[in-house]
Amino acid sequence: MQQKIGIVGSGLIGSSWAIVFARAGCEVMVFDRDPETFEPSRRYIQENLGELAALGMLKDPEAVFQRVGFTPRLEAALEEAAYVQESVFEQLEVKREVFERIDPLLRPGMIVGSSTSGIPASRFTQSLSNRQACLIAHPVNPPHLIPLVEIVPAPWTDGSAVEFTRELMETVGQSPILVNGEIEGFILNRLQGALLNEAWWLYQEGYATADDIDKTVRNGLGLRWSFMGPFQTIDLNSPKGIAEYAERLAPLYLSVARSRSDPQPWSQEAIHKAEQELRQKRVKGDIPKSRIWRDKLLLALKKWKMDAGLQ
Amino acid sequence: MQQKIGIVGSGLIGSSWAIVFARAGCEVMVFDRDPETFEPSRRYIQENLGELAALGMLKDPEAVFQRVGFTPRLEAALEEAAYVQESVFEQLEVKREVFERIDPLLRPGMIVGSSTSGIPASRFTQSLSNRQACLIAHPVNPPHLIPLVEIVPAPWTDGSAVEFTRELMETVGQSPILVNGEIEGFILNRLQGALLNEAWWLYQEGYATADDIDKTVRNGLGLRWSFMGPFQTIDLNSPKGIAEYAERLAPLYLSVARSRSDPQPWSQEAIHKAEQELRQKRVKGDIPKSRIWRDKLLLALKKWKMDAGLQ
Repeated sequence: MQQKIGIVGSGLIGSSWAIVFARAGCEVMVFDRDPETFEPSRRYIQENLGELAALGMLKDPEAVFQRVGFTPRLEAALEEAAYVQESVFEQLEVKREVFERIDPLLRPGMIVGSSTSGIPASRFTQSLSNRQACLIAHPVNPPHLIPLVEIVPAPWTDGSAVEFTRELMETVGQSPILVNGEIEGFILNRLQGALLNEAWWLYQEGYATADDIDKTVRNGLGLRWSFMGPFQTIDLNSPKGIAEYAERLAPLYLSVARSRSDPQPWSQEAIHKAEQELRQKRVKGDIPKSRIWRDKLLLALKKWKMDAGLQ
Repeated sequence: MQQKIGIVGSGLIGSSWAIVFARAGCEVMVFDRDPETFEPSRRYIQENLGELAALGMLKDPEAVFQRVGFTPRLEAALEEAAYVQESVFEQLEVKREVFERIDPLLRPGMIVGSSTSGIPASRFTQSLSNRQACLIAHPVNPPHLIPLVEIVPAPWTDGSAVEFTRELMETVGQSPILVNGEIEGFILNRLQGALLNEAWWLYQEGYATADDIDKTVRNGLGLRWSFMGPFQTIDLNSPKGIAEYAERLAPLYLSVARSRSDPQPWSQEAIHKAEQELRQKRVKGDIPKSRIWRDKLLLALKKWKMDAGLQ
């Protein structure tokens, strides 16, 4: 993979994207208007490459590291790039502004993907000259450990831009999916939200503790889902497959859904109570330390899935 | 763990339960009124113990296997048992009948857990003399690979029966949770159903293929969920934790939920289409072979979680 890649924004997501592309062989140039972010970004990249190498998942971390450059000039990051991954702050105005700066720098054939988790591309690309080259490429944090990428075109995005991004993501080892339409929350957060809405309701009503609800997923539902997903899981949960499963269990799920009243906000009291309970699960009560713990486990899980030939 | 355990029903669930208790050191007696089921059950137990041993997760599979006996006499299975795990066919009348047979055989202090995935205990224990000793202990299939157990008392279940079952499940290496109230679908299937309802809707409306929805979970959402659960995941997804996450994202999830019309049955057309798509994911198009594939991966995942000190 010899493509040149531009990364716009050197925060955690941008830095993790740099790892994704550089470890696949791409030359990566990271832009940020604040050069003070370069050192923390470099450190993050170097540490994470070291951890991948320590588990035997990467051969020459130093060579990979050398493929990542930094610049405070947007032009320099985009100069020879075939693909640009935008990863700036998640706010409509900020996205709009950065895409307006990117637009005149695009050469024919260049594609730009935005890391936004929820803002449809049509809201910040409509007036651009090169809007046909822009789409969403929404990663899960951090993308160098979690491969899923949601590709969401705007109504005016070229089919060839979608295809290019999908192939690029496959080639660099990510797992792209195509979302047909700019639906609120895309696919991932709609699925997450559906489960979270039910989890919060069960918690608010006192049916289980937060940790027992977490256990239900981490020691129950989440195991098969971590390598099969929900449809394949139910397909293997009935002797004759998914249609038989649906015949047997869809009425239960419909009845549960109908027994629920209209969607309500998550209760403030429940959020406060869950926070107290969850603080005890944090490593030394600390979120940054817990994230390091989480990322080490994600790394080990990624290695396990690689070794098992799964993706 | 020297407790004696009675298993009622020698199907796949009963056989897997026998592994759970016997590998923890319990003497297990499996009852089934049909002695022809004993040989397939023995074979299942022996094969699975062999696989656990091959991965170094069990020392002496033969000794464990010797702790499992079979009998066509219910009395013999319950004779000295401290705990009975009922795992017969999932139908109210069948459950009612077997509990009526178990009831007069119970000695003081004996506890009976039902493996039912959805029938509340009050519907088949109400008229029993020993109904205070009965509850639900709902496993995920197969329990020797997936540790979660939902404990759901009936309104008349003794608190001591709940406590005994919870401790027993912890001791034998399962992961029990307590469901406070006989809610339809318990916790696990309500969470699963919420996600499935959204997944089917996205599929029916053409927003993504079945495999892309599966990928979203198996290469995205399901990774953190497989060792953290949904609440701990969002707690680490915002710099200040779950309350900040809720402030930022609860409005999106509420808006998505409100944009959905009233719950509808899964469309027959979508089910048929998904089945065609999923058939291609099956190992040689075959469900039994795909289940063997799944169980081998669940076993490897269990080992990975054990090695990582997780449960």
